[in-house]
Amino acid sequence: MPKKIRLGILGGGGDSLIGILHRVASQINDNYEIVGAVFNPDHNASIEFAKQIDVPTNRIYKDFDTLIEEELKLPEEERIQVCSVQTPNFLHYPMAKKLLDNGFHVICEKPMTMTYEEAKSLQESHTKSGKVFALTHTYTGYPMVRQMREMIKAGALGKIHKVDARYYQGWINPIIHDKEQRSSVWRLDPTKAGISSCMGDIGVHAFNLVEYTTGLDVKSILCDFNYLYEDNQMDVDGTVLIRMGEHVKGVIRASQVATEEENGLAIRIYGQKGGFVWEQEKPNFLYYFEEGKPLQVYKPGHQYNSEFSLEGTKLPPGHPEGIFDSMANIYLGAARAIRGEAQNDGAFPTMRDGVRGMNFIEATVESHKSGNVWVELD
Amino acid sequence: MPKKIRLGILGGGGDSLIGILHRVASQINDNYEIVGAVFNPDHNASIEFAKQIDVPTNRIYKDFDTLIEEELKLPEEERIQVCSVQTPNFLHYPMAKKLLDNGFHVICEKPMTMTYEEAKSLQESHTKSGKVFALTHTYTGYPMVRQMREMIKAGALGKIHKVDARYYQGWINPIIHDKEQRSSVWRLDPTKAGISSCMGDIGVHAFNLVEYTTGLDVKSILCDFNYLYEDNQMDVDGTVLIRMGEHVKGVIRASQVATEEENGLAIRIYGQKGGFVWEQEKPNFLYYFEEGKPLQVYKPGHQYNSEFSLEGTKLPPGHPEGIFDSMANIYLGAARAIRGEAQNDGAFPTMRDGVRGMNFIEATVESHKSGNVWVELD
Amino acid sequence: MPKKIRLGILGGGGDSLIGILHRVASQINDNYEIVGAVFNPDHNASIEFAKQIDVPTNRIYKDFDTLIEEELKLPEEERIQVCSVQTPNFLHYPMAKKLLDNGFHVICEKPMTMTYEEAKSLQESHTKSGKVFALTHTYTGYPMVRQMREMIKAGALGKIHKVDARYYQGWINPIIHDKEQRSSVWRLDPTKAGISSCMGDIGVHAFNLVEYTTGLDVKSILCDFNYLYEDNQMDVDGTVLIRMGEHVKGVIRASQVATEEENGLAIRIYGQKGGFVWEQEKPNFLYYFEEGKPLQVYKPGHQYNSEFSLEGTKLPPGHPEGIFDSMANIYLGAARAIRGEAQNDGAFPTMRDGVRGMNFIEATVESHKSGNVWVELD
Amino acid sequence: MPKKIRLGILGGGGDSLIGILHRVASQINDNYEIVGAVFNPDHNASIEFAKQIDVPTNRIYKDFDTLIEEELKLPEEERIQVCSVQTPNFLHYPMAKKLLDNGFHVICEKPMTMTYEEAKSLQESHTKSGKVFALTHTYTGYPMVRQMREMIKAGALGKIHKVDARYYQGWINPIIHDKEQRSSVWRLDPTKAGISSCMGDIGVHAFNLVEYTTGLDVKSILCDFNYLYEDNQMDVDGTVLIRMGEHVKGVIRASQVATEEENGLAIRIYGQKGGFVWEQEKPNFLYYFEEGKPLQVYKPGHQYNSEFSLEGTKLPPGHPEGIFDSMANIYLGAARAIRGEAQNDGAFPTMRDGVRGMNFIEATVESHKSGNVWVELD
Ligand SMILES: NC(=O)c1ccc[n+]([C@@H]2O[C@H](COP(=O)([O-])OP(=O)(O)OC[C@H]3O[C@@H](n4cnc5c(N)ncnc54)[C@H](O)[C@@H]3O)[C@@H](O)[C@H]2O)c1
Ligand SMILES: NC(=O)c1ccc[n+]([C@@H]2O[C@H](COP(=O)([O-])OP(=O)(O)OC[C@H]3O[C@@H](n4cnc5c(N)ncnc54)[C@H](O)[C@@H]3O)[C@@H](O)[C@H]2O)c1
Ligand SMILES: NC(=O)c1ccc[n+]([C@@H]2O[C@H](COP(=O)([O-])OP(=O)(O)OC[C@H]3O[C@@H](n4cnc5c(N)ncnc54)[C@H](O)[C@@H]3O)[C@@H](O)[C@H]2O)c1
Ligand SMILES: NC(=O)c1ccc[n+]([C@@H]2O[C@H](COP(=O)([O-])OP(=O)(O)OC[C@H]3O[C@@H](n4cnc5c(N)ncnc54)[C@H](O)[C@@H]3O)[C@@H](O)[C@H]2O)c1
Repeated sequence: MPKKIRLGILGGGGDSLIGILHRVASQINDNYEIVGAVFNPDHNASIEFAKQIDVPTNRIYKDFDTLIEEELKLPEEERIQVCSVQTPNFLHYPMAKKLLDNGFHVICEKPMTMTYEEAKSLQESHTKSGKVFALTHTYTGYPMVRQMREMIKAGALGKIHKVDARYYQGWINPIIHDKEQRSSVWRLDPTKAGISSCMGDIGVHAFNLVEYTTGLDVKSILCDFNYLYEDNQMDVDGTVLIRMGEHVKGVIRASQVATEEENGLAIRIYGQKGGFVWEQEKPNFLYYFEEGKPLQVYKPGHQYNSEFSLEGTKLPPGHPEGIFDSMANIYLGAARAIRGEAQNDGAFPTMRDGVRGMNFIEATVESHKSGNVWVELD
Repeated sequence: MPKKIRLGILGGGGDSLIGILHRVASQINDNYEIVGAVFNPDHNASIEFAKQIDVPTNRIYKDFDTLIEEELKLPEEERIQVCSVQTPNFLHYPMAKKLLDNGFHVICEKPMTMTYEEAKSLQESHTKSGKVFALTHTYTGYPMVRQMREMIKAGALGKIHKVDARYYQGWINPIIHDKEQRSSVWRLDPTKAGISSCMGDIGVHAFNLVEYTTGLDVKSILCDFNYLYEDNQMDVDGTVLIRMGEHVKGVIRASQVATEEENGLAIRIYGQKGGFVWEQEKPNFLYYFEEGKPLQVYKPGHQYNSEFSLEGTKLPPGHPEGIFDSMANIYLGAARAIRGEAQNDGAFPTMRDGVRGMNFIEATVESHKSGNVWVELD
Repeated sequence: MPKKIRLGILGGGGDSLIGILHRVASQINDNYEIVGAVFNPDHNASIEFAKQIDVPTNRIYKDFDTLIEEELKLPEEERIQVCSVQTPNFLHYPMAKKLLDNGFHVICEKPMTMTYEEAKSLQESHTKSGKVFALTHTYTGYPMVRQMREMIKAGALGKIHKVDARYYQGWINPIIHDKEQRSSVWRLDPTKAGISSCMGDIGVHAFNLVEYTTGLDVKSILCDFNYLYEDNQMDVDGTVLIRMGEHVKGVIRASQVATEEENGLAIRIYGQKGGFVWEQEKPNFLYYFEEGKPLQVYKPGHQYNSEFSLEGTKLPPGHPEGIFDSMANIYLGAARAIRGEAQNDGAFPTMRDGVRGMNFIEATVESHKSGNVWVELD
Repeated sequence: MPKKIRLGILGGGGDSLIGILHRVASQINDNYEIVGAVFNPDHNASIEFAKQIDVPTNRIYKDFDTLIEEELKLPEEERIQVCSVQTPNFLHYPMAKKLLDNGFHVICEKPMTMTYEEAKSLQESHTKSGKVFALTHTYTGYPMVRQMREMIKAGALGKIHKVDARYYQGWINPIIHDKEQRSSVWRLDPTKAGISSCMGDIGVHAFNLVEYTTGLDVKSILCDFNYLYEDNQMDVDGTVLIRMGEHVKGVIRASQVATEEENGLAIRIYGQKGGFVWEQEKPNFLYYFEEGKPLQVYKPGHQYNSEFSLEGTKLPPGHPEGIFDSMANIYLGAARAIRGEAQNDGAFPTMRDGVRGMNFIEATVESHKSGNVWVELD
């Protein structure tokens, strides 16, 4: 393995939720070193945080534009190679675009952009740039998710005819039922959070999981949202009927008011020869139904798994790895892509996943607003 | 307890699937004695079967009409009091109607009738008759389903805003993918099986469970079916968006091609204060999510349960009772009603459940055929 | 099937815990008819109960001896064929012995007798009588327990080297910690309950399950009891090391103070080629570990099960049957034996199981009292 | 937070199993920086590996003694502060002792030493040194294990009376049944692996978990091993009866031939007021039985947890953290101790745990060899 890749961080400060996940994930396989960052919009906070986590402060910039400007002045072999964008949603597009346009690789949080329009524009920049773009749909890094994908590719289910995905959380429940709170939280303010809360934040993970595991595209959708209160303008719950081709149908269910649910992402896929069930909160158990046979429970690290799944496990079977390890697998995939190494095509979610995700989110809103009618995805 | 109730059986012969469930259930609480029957259309088969299970053969009639005729000749204190209708679907309506019209109580399998029209007609007969009519939506007899209903009534969830029910089976999977088989099996022949396969056979159970547990009515639905093959005219899979009132939404999912799923009926209900999850294949575990508290797992027979739930358990906690015991609880409710004893209003599914079930089934077909549009239930 | 077998009941009155289980179990497969009984020592109570459950009162006898006397006067084709002994422990031996000596078949609750001495004496009577004797170790009737037995016989585990059984209950916990209660409850009074509480009541079920499933005999044991309080003379908890032959070892754990455990009987069996895990409270799930393969989950009713297992299931997969159905399978086995029909040798626990059970119970007490030393079983 | 702690690594090379766990764990909370190491006995391999993981090679020493010698020459503010000992068992004692004697803090793998004698000697060095010594009983870092400990301390179980721990693995199964393999693998060679295989390698984890969670000391033990073959001299399976004081009893079960079990560490603790069940392979679910209440399922990150448990979680509920995160919590505790910060006394396993562990292992061997008799722990 060559020297560590020089990583820049945008967002993910000490006050953030997701920063720790990226930082740890980037270190897990000894591939990255943080050399520069804008952790916070407040420069002092950024520097304070850099000290706390013992990152040298000389390349902690006062803002994103300065980071680009200054880094470009450095010799290429010192310069940040890849930036990880962990800022709030509305900053993903401008940051990612400028990074690609200036020759940086990008690792970017979801949702990729605020609109489908932006997504397509970013895709153009990406194509022109020739750089690596990885989207952190975290759950695709789990060894058992990868095992599903590989087994489906290898025909374990035969022709798929039904997909059922769910992402249920409950954290908005106490907020939505409090008039005060539901009108003040930024998540439920469309001017700040974008056109969708539930579908944009978590439904899109479920959508991505569906396409990632089945290898099929969602062709059209019909969506019904629930807002719970007249004075709330953002979906906090929704069900989406999906069609994935001739006689391949399914449903994506998402909720932020499924009281006391935590992070209930799950998927069921059924085909002519078999079926799969997987649940994010017990990520190391994959249930495989084979026509006429007892249910089989796959677990990570066993030799019966595919190579791609096995490479995502660091310890022998029975040592539970979790979400940090899953994200680390995505960072590993990105590292290899940056180094130009060959690898499995599911090693990390790509620009295409991001574009499709934005297409999906806008389609759900359109479908709901138009009275729950079918809307085609591109 | 007075003498056992004199029970007549229609259908449920030795060749049937469901007969054993009814026979055992009727005996479990020592309330019924089988005194007459038409187990099969073939009289000899009926008599043979009566001998096998040691039921006196003198009142094994050659057909249903004869049963009515002959029984009416008997003095009232010898006559069959209640008939259990376990014949194929198309016979439920004519049999149940004639029974009610002639002063018999009725226990009837689902779906109650072939059409919504018939259902309303049967309701009229029922109202006129003043007799007991119990519909065997078997799953409503489970102690933990009854516990859900009672806790919801008592406010454990606060205002409900989301319901999600599923009934996934896989047994049609090997049939549907075989051209020969799918065109010959009566289940997929609309002239024999009625207008719906998946929704009529199992979706309706999920629908009933939703209304039974929440105490809310489904107001309107939007449905999408999957037929899998062009040459198949019956739904084998479908998803139904439901609305149960102002900002109360949900989904009912049903499938007969969820490969190797067995009898996967399950429900999730979420409200302002809490949520419930229950699965039919692990019927003795009820998961209660209370806002801000650890998940609680309710089990039958414990003193913390409601009286209604407790009365459905015969042994101390930890002795798993199952589907026979669940059906027995419905038979127990019917027995008490026949005897005119006061009891919980959820003791057995009623004519109203049957009427609503047929309304639901027809609405799903209408919605699908009309291009997946909203259809109101009455 | 010939006419129903004429069944007599001893004990199991309306005030009893276990009577309902036997009554329902005897009816489930249409094999038995209750024709006579002494439900309670109080004759009036017996008659009242007979009326309640609608059993004719003419053969409800005032006591056991009268039952024998009067029944013997009846012509053989009317006489009780088999008696089910459901009285308190100390009555099992005298009743079962007199029944066998007078030519009745016997179905008997566990523990079979109060002492090993009595067990051997009963065995003699049994041998002489040539009658059927079935011991109701209820759990051996579960389809998945029978599946384990058959697969082990067929070599699924190869040579077994380790067995681990557990039976944890918690119901004595609130009693034992209350000085008043623990000195007054008859269960903890050795003059009434016999030499052992925990091992005699539930440990013996675990012991039986070990021998039933593995087909191996326990050769020697070493036991340590816990009494919790100095003033309590009965074991309420204990662990037993077991040896089942050359390099085949294991452990049986039993407790009545495993706080809030319900009926936690479970077994793990490991051999050269594979392992099994089964838990009584989820009786329809059998976990099969095969060297080098994903865990397999067996469930009742599937064609991949053995014939013996399949015959214990009445409905298709996914319809949970429970403890009543398990006991019914034992009653079915006894019925066939009474009729002299050929069947699987595990169809019901036998006299041998009873004798070995008493040997085990006495050995655990001896081992503990002698300072936790090894004691051989015969 | 001050600058990162300067960490040295002994063992844990690219060919090792456990090295990755320590490396990742040390980075997770940004507390440590690897500045020196002897990853392998072969110096070139050590240097190669350092390059691979991008650790500067100038302080990769040719052997342990050189590391000590050279580091001591460095100014204190550059010198390694703490060494992590991840070498094979026989090297733990000499390395840890010399490190302490020379003023280094130590993080050490289990079993702490080869003999109880060595353990006591190391304890002396430790006391004299005044340095931090942390023993990596990995499982004590799980948030739910810590929650158990805190709730027990706070009285959630009342007086404990029963403990039951299990550690079942299956990986030796294919080895032991192959004559060739079982005589060649170093794990089963007492001259290389020490006096015990199963108890020394995994039983000691279960023992530690028992003492860590209950806060009670094991006072005496009685052990029975299984060697499976005459020509094998090392225990591959064993059961240990334990006594933890007046009327507090229990059992520790360990196996390396529990076919296809992975890393099956589990514990059950019962007391007057309640009980706990926890399983390592589903580490984020803690089952709490409270007398008279429904079972409660605790999960990490919720506000109902203790402060100590909460501090071991990095993301909101529902994001599964695993074994790397558990080990990271132990490294975090060690870091704070090294910096002299106050913290929970369960922040990491200590020298006392190591001494007791060795005492336990030797006692089990003594008990077994003496014919399964009680042996006191000191
Ligand atoms: N993949 C996943 O599973 C997952 C989970 C949670 C969040 N996310 C995504 O991660 C992103 C961040 O979410 P979060 O919950 O951590 O948000 P957060 O609000 O907790 O943190 C955002 C961070 O960005 C910093 N920031 C804001 N503006 C900035 C600017 N102009 N320049 C630099 N830094 C700036 C803030 O100071 C803060 O540290 C979101 O897009 C969210 O959708 C993804
Ligand atoms: N509640 C539930 O969970 C559940 C489960 C399965 C079936 N069912 C319902 O039970 C009914 C029966 O289903 P099944 O699977 O047992 O069907 P089946 O075809 O296996 O059995 C039908 C029985 O009815 C008898 N029969 C047919 N025509 C008759 C006639 N004219 N007179 C008398 N007997 C006649 C047949 O001989 C047979 O014994 C159906 O309506 C089905 O929807 C309900
Ligand atoms: N197989 C199992 O899983 C299981 C479970 C529970 C109990 N049991 C066994 O069943 C037996 C009964 O247990 P229980 O809990 O029902 O006891 P119980 O005390 O609840 O009931 C005993 C019944 O026997 C009657 N009786 C007492 N003396 C009698 C006499 N002389 N003649 C006739 N009837 C008499 C009583 O009136 C009462 O109806 C016990 O031996 C017990 O070990 C077995
Ligand atoms: N805490 C846990 O759960 C856990 C799990 C596994 C192993 N362990 C313990 O970790 C230790 C290591 O186990 P492993 O499975 O990684 O062993 P391993 O044999 O896979 O690795 C040992 C490493 O030590 C190196 N080494 C050997 N001699 C050395 C020397 N003289 N100087 C420097 N390096 C040397 C080897 O080159 C190798 O890299 C053992 O003591 C084991 O008991 C603990």
